[in-house]
Amino acid sequence: MAQSLFSVTAASRQYDEAIEHKINQKTKPLGALGQLESLAIQIARVQYSRESELSHTLVNRTESSLSATHLPLSITQPTMLVFAADHGIAAYGVSIAPSEVTTQMVHNFMQGGAAINVFCRQMGFDLHVIDCGMLQPISESTGVINQRLGAGTYAMHLQAAMSTAQVHQGFALAKQLVTRHVKAGCNILALGEMGIGNTSAASAVMAALLHVDVDLCVGRGTGIDDVTLIKKSQLINQAIELHRTKLTSAEAILAHLGGFEIVQMTGAILAAAEQKIIVLIDGFIATAAALVAVKLAPQSSDYLVFAHESHEQGHKLMLQQLQATPLLSLGLRLGEGTGAALALPLLQAAVNFYNQMASFKEAGINNVV
Amino acid sequence: MAQSLFSVTAASRQYDEAIEHKINQKTKPLGALGQLESLAIQIARVQYSRESELSHTLVNRTESSLSATHLPLSITQPTMLVFAADHGIAAYGVSIAPSEVTTQMVHNFMQGGAAINVFCRQMGFDLHVIDCGMLQPISESTGVINQRLGAGTYAMHLQAAMSTAQVHQGFALAKQLVTRHVKAGCNILALGEMGIGNTSAASAVMAALLHVDVDLCVGRGTGIDDVTLIKKSQLINQAIELHRTKLTSAEAILAHLGGFEIVQMTGAILAAAEQKIIVLIDGFIATAAALVAVKLAPQSSDYLVFAHESHEQGHKLMLQQLQATPLLSLGLRLGEGTGAALALPLLQAAVNFYNQMASFKEAGINNVV
Repeated sequence: MAQSLFSVTAASRQYDEAIEHKINQKTKPLGALGQLESLAIQIARVQYSRESELSHTLVNRTESSLSATHLPLSITQPTMLVFAADHGIAAYGVSIAPSEVTTQMVHNFMQGGAAINVFCRQMGFDLHVIDCGMLQPISESTGVINQRLGAGTYAMHLQAAMSTAQVHQGFALAKQLVTRHVKAGCNILALGEMGIGNTSAASAVMAALLHVDVDLCVGRGTGIDDVTLIKKSQLINQAIELHRTKLTSAEAILAHLGGFEIVQMTGAILAAAEQKIIVLIDGFIATAAALVAVKLAPQSSDYLVFAHESHEQGHKLMLQQLQATPLLSLGLRLGEGTGAALALPLLQAAVNFYNQMASFKEAGINNVV
Repeated sequence: MAQSLFSVTAASRQYDEAIEHKINQKTKPLGALGQLESLAIQIARVQYSRESELSHTLVNRTESSLSATHLPLSITQPTMLVFAADHGIAAYGVSIAPSEVTTQMVHNFMQGGAAINVFCRQMGFDLHVIDCGMLQPISESTGVINQRLGAGTYAMHLQAAMSTAQVHQGFALAKQLVTRHVKAGCNILALGEMGIGNTSAASAVMAALLHVDVDLCVGRGTGIDDVTLIKKSQLINQAIELHRTKLTSAEAILAHLGGFEIVQMTGAILAAAEQKIIVLIDGFIATAAALVAVKLAPQSSDYLVFAHESHEQGHKLMLQQLQATPLLSLGLRLGEGTGAALALPLLQAAVNFYNQMASFKEAGINNVV
């Protein structure tokens, strides 16, 4: 189903040599901008691939792929999508807060008072909040986008969190949303979330996808104590045991163990990859969605930039699986997309040095490389 | 001398409780903004201390220190000072490039084509380049600030790099420059450098100050090979051996082993600390200057924010000594102040969440802490 809904192809490598040549002629020692250089290469590869696919201008206008690199990179209408949902398991004591806090925090988002609002204003992100299925909906007059798949998932240790039809509906809704933003000019998408209990769902999805022990996947979320941590681990184990025979595909794992926001984030990632734009992944929950997306369409990894590495062992393990090196490591454990918002200036810096720095020749400097 | 030129006092801790209370009431789990929270505490402590010292408004206006936290934090006229100089040792094969590249790169800075120009434009830094003593000076009509202490230092493995009088002159010039910027409204200072051979000087200063083996202090700088690395280590050992009996104070270490830019960066740090403003330290060279500054005036550490951790073992060791946790780790090895420039949005984010985020009470949310 995901394979038929999303047509994801790899970013072209045909410009790589030209891109690297351009970067290596900049007035700096070879490789001296470290991770910003690999980031610039990735952004260039993605943007030239998109450009080539859209208009064939690269192919028509140029005689060699070297000329492609005269096109400047850009960041246009950076858009932050925050997906909110509730989780049946939250009623069984796995979080520091009750499910009603999901809706209260979404109210806070709509009023501009949360951390994600502050950081989006600073960084120039256009922020949208999507109700994917909170227990208590709020009025659409607040500006929240209604993409509800239900009123919270079922408790996964007692029954499947949702149906396969809900997974597919979530994918389709996310695709529509992302496609709309890309058509309107967005070429950098960032993903965040809000949902009391969603680290439990993300840990369960991770454990089932990677076939690793639940204890390697759970952590303290936003700050639970030892007793709650043990409870969380027990319930996730119980859920995986209950559904074991049915966890035969990434979609089935999402249906039995996932959350409405995790489903829609997965769909958003696949849609961004299909559209050949960069998608900036926030923390633990968003990374779990990325893991599912890459399982469904391995080439979507070409479009992923990981913003923040949390201190949780489970996050490190997922990043390792995805061969990802996040840009920041600030000890954040808030979610909401805060890590992704904070990383945007580094993407802009990669674009800017690529576009603006002088070459040795232009600057009249002995080539020091 | 440094002690008589700079009057550095600690940032006041009297507002700490109120600052932490304010942060803990924000709509997020306790501590969930990680390093941004410690950064906000540091900036608040420094800015309230400065405010209190300047105008006594905090003391006069309020009945308790709690009220102090109603004052918003700010970042005004962020200023990047890039100190350039040449090094006698560079003629003996310790770098990937000859000394003339220092002047060529400063030309590039003045024409706006270098990485530091790109990042300062993006981040809103006011950029100034100071010639502290390049081999080949350039016209002041380019905008470069003339604070030359000579035409390059002497080769430290053959004689003292400079005289004590030159160290004092460098301190005085840096103090004048920083004081001028602070009076004009700058409250965040960032420091960068350019100087072929200056990792050798910084490594030598580090080894002498910390009494550690030279091999723990040297690295590949901007990218030297094995042979050059061994040569670099040998010459630094030779320099330390030659001057051993005279390395009895931080100032003497600067004079015998330092560089003109390292001296002026040290002076700039002490001047910023004296003025009670935050100073953003870039990479290896700037950290060596910070180490000297903290040796001369331990309380200057209250004002230091470390921007970037390089992969060099020597940098990690210095940061450990300074009990510093840098904000970024992007594998940069370019200097120029690039790491410091890239970190500014994180300081702004700390200021913004402190000023703008709603409290649980304001947002009508169950306190989840």
